[in-house]
Amino acid sequence: MPSSRAGHYCVVVGDGLLSPRSPVIASALGGQRALLVTTPTVARLYAASFDALAREQQISYDTLILACDEAHKTLAKVEIICARALDLQIERRGVLIALGGGICSDLVGVAASMIRRGIAHVRIPTTLIAQIDAGIGIKAAVNFGAKKSFLGSFYPPGAVIVDPAFLGSTSPRMLCHGLSEILKIAIVRDARLFDLVADHHAQLVRSRFQHPMEPGRQIIALAIQDMLDELAPNLYEDQTYERRVDFGHTFSPLFEAMSAFTIPHGDAVSLDMALTVNIAAELGYLSDVHRVAILDTLAAVGLPVHHPVMTADVCVGAMMATLAHRDGRLNLVLPTSVGQSTFWPDVIPTRVLEDALARLPHGGRGRRMPLRRPAEAGDVDTGEVVSAPRAAAMR
Amino acid sequence: MPSSRAGHYCVVVGDGLLSPRSPVIASALGGQRALLVTTPTVARLYAASFDALAREQQISYDTLILACDEAHKTLAKVEIICARALDLQIERRGVLIALGGGICSDLVGVAASMIRRGIAHVRIPTTLIAQIDAGIGIKAAVNFGAKKSFLGSFYPPGAVIVDPAFLGSTSPRMLCHGLSEILKIAIVRDARLFDLVADHHAQLVRSRFQHPMEPGRQIIALAIQDMLDELAPNLYEDQTYERRVDFGHTFSPLFEAMSAFTIPHGDAVSLDMALTVNIAAELGYLSDVHRVAILDTLAAVGLPVHHPVMTADVCVGAMMATLAHRDGRLNLVLPTSVGQSTFWPDVIPTRVLEDALARLPHGGRGRRMPLRRPAEAGDVDTGEVVSAPRAAAMR
Repeated sequence: MPSSRAGHYCVVVGDGLLSPRSPVIASALGGQRALLVTTPTVARLYAASFDALAREQQISYDTLILACDEAHKTLAKVEIICARALDLQIERRGVLIALGGGICSDLVGVAASMIRRGIAHVRIPTTLIAQIDAGIGIKAAVNFGAKKSFLGSFYPPGAVIVDPAFLGSTSPRMLCHGLSEILKIAIVRDARLFDLVADHHAQLVRSRFQHPMEPGRQIIALAIQDMLDELAPNLYEDQTYERRVDFGHTFSPLFEAMSAFTIPHGDAVSLDMALTVNIAAELGYLSDVHRVAILDTLAAVGLPVHHPVMTADVCVGAMMATLAHRDGRLNLVLPTSVGQSTFWPDVIPTRVLEDALARLPHGGRGRRMPLRRPAEAGDVDTGEVVSAPRAAAMR
Repeated sequence: MPSSRAGHYCVVVGDGLLSPRSPVIASALGGQRALLVTTPTVARLYAASFDALAREQQISYDTLILACDEAHKTLAKVEIICARALDLQIERRGVLIALGGGICSDLVGVAASMIRRGIAHVRIPTTLIAQIDAGIGIKAAVNFGAKKSFLGSFYPPGAVIVDPAFLGSTSPRMLCHGLSEILKIAIVRDARLFDLVADHHAQLVRSRFQHPMEPGRQIIALAIQDMLDELAPNLYEDQTYERRVDFGHTFSPLFEAMSAFTIPHGDAVSLDMALTVNIAAELGYLSDVHRVAILDTLAAVGLPVHHPVMTADVCVGAMMATLAHRDGRLNLVLPTSVGQSTFWPDVIPTRVLEDALARLPHGGRGRRMPLRRPAEAGDVDTGEVVSAPRAAAMR
């Protein structure tokens, strides 16, 4: 018996989407009753604006405020959302709204996928990582037992509404984590995006992505478009195990776990990218100038490129764990230049791995190299920075 | 952004599918590791057979035995399945098997839809109602708070394996409940199926569907095919709110709830069908001979056609509740003859409802009429039976 469930969702990127007269949110809700799920911090900053918009446009909604950090990414929190939806008698055409970061979006996505066998949800991501990565795809999940994201579903949102103005209230550290995922997609498929980040990251982080406006908006729009283009042909991950968005996500899960999750996700992805870039160079796929350009850009952005957890044993363990998720093949995404990549199917030989690890810049031993791609290299000074000083991590 | 998830599933109907040499179950599992979820009763009756088959065909599996009655149709039970799958490190290609009735199938379906964002599941329904109705579609749900089936998903199984031999161990009462759903689909679209039930129900219930073999198998195969044909164009219930499988399911949810669920589902569906048939006659859609043929067949099968809970007020309340589920229209399925039906969009006027209720056969006042459709009516004796004596309900 054939079965199919087709749908469309759009990602709207723009400024002022939360202003009282903007039609975007009302249009995404389609006149249906809504339950707004948000976090204490986001409610403090934006609940009044949302309420003004709702009053102006006669949006009927209720609010549920939930703590949304990794420890709360549980089925119990999902049940709280479901219970509120039941209390409010949200009908099959009702809509859940996730106003917050990636975890808020995950909790709401899982709840929406289950309530009355699936109701609509709209995401309004407020962090950079959620705006360009976590909030863009169709995956939603919660942790279960000791297993991260063990329970969830592939469940497309009705719409994703991205307003860079929200970034004005996030921390520099969270912006760096977002830039880590932006560099991920840039390195494997978009040289122009890489250059924009290399050229403007310092000002953008200082200004919380508000200045310079044009490149900031371009970076977000390109990163989202790249992500959508990568996801679209394999949205349910049932077409292929060769996924370029897996770059930076082969070794990083074990780095996070081995550090008892003291290494934030964006940092772990950066560590994985640095190692993989060295592997690509060892295997002869990536020239040394490109290798160093990537490592230096990661470091300049303030992302780590080395950590004591990165031993050969841990990396071999990570590869073994990955084989199970990718149907018996590693499918490691190897950059072949900045903006291009290929797949390496098999486990990386231990000697290659050891050499790649040894060539990571430890402490003050990073090399001084231009940040830009060699073809357009200028005289940008990057110094010997390996990892910039950090603000306290928010999560 | 376009998104779609397409899949196929097949329903295999046959005898001896649990015998050690039958290839059907192994083929459905496709060589993957499995977690068999079943109930204490079914395990007692069939676990040894399943194990013999698994040994013969080198199926790698573990077993989880769960009490599966309506009170246990909860997210907590789903979590027990998920926890076992996590313990056993069931991978993304692993398979859950539901060996049991409709509730077992619901719990397994919800768990499968969530584990690693969706793994495969195979249903082996052991009750008549699960074999021809609950286990055939793609809906799975659990109760939540006071709300029946509030949480769940549309999640196609990998395969449904239907072996009428399982019915040999079910009670006559459970067979009657299955026949209620079979009559539902027969009345709205399949006169031949109706005739087969009318002709053979007594022997089939007596023999637990084992004799006469041919009509028993035909009834099951036709009922499944009818169900699949009805579901296919609207599998996710997002194409239309006109669903012929909703026959018998407009007033019955409130009948069940008002009786504090002492009226079993199959009985409630029968009450709803009896009332709706009278409404169809009142509205001039159904001739009196067809009306009486249907009522008498329900009664002869041992299904109730009247109950004190059926007041005009309750029926009006049920219609109001239904409007919300069917997007503001009632879309009541009205039989126009045995095997044909149409939709009535609007709320039924109270006077029509009252007349329809008044014409239900109360106690000894049922009319003596042929069981078969008028065109082929014989001289079958149906007596004045309204509701046959029952065995103790199994759930």
